[in-house]
Parts: sequence; C-alpha cells; structure tokens
Amino acid sequence: MKLTELKTKEFVSTLASDAPAPGGGSASALFGALGTALVSMVANLTTGKEKYAAYEDRMKEVLKETEGLMESFNNLIEKDTEVYNAVGDVLTMPKTTDEEKAKRKEAMQQALKEATIVPYTMMEEAAKVLVVLQKAMGHSNPNAVSDLGVGALGLKAAMQGAWLNVKINLGSIKDEAFVSEYRAKGEKLLADNLALADSLYQEVEKQL
Amino acid sequence: MKLTELKTKEFVSTLASDAPAPGGGSASALFGALGTALVSMVANLTTGKEKYAAYEDRMKEVLKETEGLMESFNNLIEKDTEVYNAVGDVLTMPKTTDEEKAKRKEAMQQALKEATIVPYTMMEEAAKVLVVLQKAMGHSNPNAVSDLGVGALGLKAAMQGAWLNVKINLGSIKDEAFVSEYRAKGEKLLADNLALADSLYQEVEKQL
Repeated sequence: MKLTELKTKEFVSTLASDAPAPGGGSASALFGALGTALVSMVANLTTGKEKYAAYEDRMKEVLKETEGLMESFNNLIEKDTEVYNAVGDVLTMPKTTDEEKAKRKEAMQQALKEATIVPYTMMEEAAKVLVVLQKAMGHSNPNAVSDLGVGALGLKAAMQGAWLNVKINLGSIKDEAFVSEYRAKGEKLLADNLALADSLYQEVEKQL
Repeated sequence: MKLTELKTKEFVSTLASDAPAPGGGSASALFGALGTALVSMVANLTTGKEKYAAYEDRMKEVLKETEGLMESFNNLIEKDTEVYNAVGDVLTMPKTTDEEKAKRKEAMQQALKEATIVPYTMMEEAAKVLVVLQKAMGHSNPNAVSDLGVGALGLKAAMQGAWLNVKINLGSIKDEAFVSEYRAKGEKLLADNLALADSLYQEVEKQL
C-alpha cells in the first residue's frame, strides 16, 4: 500500500502510530508537496482570467514547473519510508561469522547513504519550488497571496525537516568524504534558501 | 466528501486545483495534524519499553493530549474549507433592494468572523501541542528525536499559516472591537510560541 494512497486522516494516524515508518522524513516530503500544491493553486487561480492576462505566460510556466515538483514530492513521501525500512531490514541480517558481520556492516553503510540522499533530494526540490514561488509573487492573483505565504512556510518546514533526516543519518556513516560532501551541500542549501522562505512569508504578512 | 477522506495524493492535487477551497487554511491545519502526529509517534515509540520506563507516565499523558489535538486539527481541515465556502455563498445572495443589500452585508460580516475564528483556533491548538512537545523533549526515545524536531516545524508552519488566514479576514471586518481583539490575541500567540518552536527545532538540530 502506497502512503499517498492512504486517506489523509489515515496518513495522519499511521504517522502517529508506533510503526517504524512513515516518520519525519515522509512528513517533511508531504509538507513540501502541500507547499508546492499551493503555488500551483495560485497559478491556477490566475490563468485564463482577462484581468490577469499580463501574468498568463509566467503562470503557465509556474504550472508546468510545479506539476513535476509536486509529483517528485509525492514520490519522496514513499521513497523516504522505503529507505528507512531498508535500514531496518539490514538489522535482521545474520551476524554470526566474520563474513556475515562484514557483509552486514557494508549493507548498513549503503542503506544509510540511501537514507541520506532521499531527504537531501527533498531539500533540493524545496529550493526549486521556492524559486518558482518567488516568480509568482506580485505576478499572480492578489486574492490568493496568503496561499503563497502558506506555501513558503510548507517549503521551509520541508527543507528543515529533511535536513534533520540528512543529519541524523550522516551521524552513522563512516565514509568521511560522503559525510563532508552532504553536510556541506545541505548547509549551503539552508544558507541559500531559509532566508528566502522567510522573506517571502514576511512579504505576504506585510501585505495583509 | 470530507477532505480528510481524500487519498493523500488527492488532497494534494485538490489543493493544487483552481477549486476555491481547500486553500492555505486547510493546508495549515494539515501541517498541524502532521506535527501533532509526530509527537504522538515519539510517545508511542517510547511507551511499553523497559529501557524508557522512567518516561512511561509522562508519555502516556502526551498520548492522551495529542489524541484530542490531532482530532481537533483533522476537524479544522474540514472546518476551514467550510467557513471559506460560506463566504463564497454570501456572494451569491441577492443585492437588488436596500433590505437585500443590508442582509447580505450583515451575512458577509458574520461569515468573515467565522472565517477568522477557525484559523485563530488552529493557532491556539498549535500552541497547545508545542507545550506537549516540549514535555516530550529529553524524556522520550532518543532515536526519534529528529521526529520531534520535524513536529516543531509542522506546528510552527501551522501557526504562521493560520495567522495569515486570520489576518486576511480581519482586513475586511468592520467590527473594530473584534478586529483589535483577534489581532492582539493572534500577535500574542505568535510572540509566545514562535521562539519556542524555533528553540525546540534548534535543540534537536544540535543533538544530531
């Protein structure tokens, strides 16, 4: 059963349960999907209206971009739970002989890398949507401006939530080059985008 | 059809569509439901384990409190869309005679007040969950600490997103006493709780 096929209230109750996954990673991807959907909604409330004809081309681009990114976040909801479960599967591997121990250790390191790359990808996708959201600000139906603000909040939460999931996995990875690379890339994404998300929210808040 | 009965991916695509609702208000309530669910999950991953026996009573309280608050957020997802649609319904009321005009104006003011109170209630609920989350910090399964961090992010996004929806409606309400009251109460909730949400996130980030 795919998580995105669950009824919304079942997603919430499954998240709340003691099932090992979904957890914060899949929840972060859903924050991102909702944030992206709000950007798409604002574009949909702008296109095809004579009053906003000047924004038409830009809004069509926004729709095209958000469509792919929304799909990407939907996939990341599933993917994060898969890679998390894969880490759990390694724990069930035998560890009696030295060979088994070595194999298990290697499999665990590989699983942890996958479990890092998935939330890192969420961070990248959230950064892309923030750029699209910025493009829509001031060039879309002004009655829906609060929805752009809520979108920025969802994308910021997605990026920071994904970062916590990157960081927790990096803590157990032995490959120092991998750890430094993803730590640096993650910190750069945060440095480049959290302030943007905040300024987009504040711009909306000021207008209301 | 209730929004929380929609499959998760359908909730996302319905949000993205040009349907007038759900919008940022219902999305904010879902951020809150997910944030609350993560607090509940951490408690569920702590209770019943000998290793965490010292946290048992506290975690049982957390479970009890989050159960009601999760339900409340699920209701607010539906409620926000209902009050938004009610504003739209008033727009279809006749406005030919003076009597009709007066009736319509009165109905609109009432609908806008309802559409303010619902997101304001979300802010209150998010503040309550942050207190519960704080209670769980350092007194729950440490392997799930990142999930508490993601929970804090969802609750912060819920509170700020709800505030944008309070503010946009206050802008059209003529009853000055009502406007001042909700503006002051909303600003107080933000002042009291955003820094708490930030510090909870930072505490988690530092630990990873």
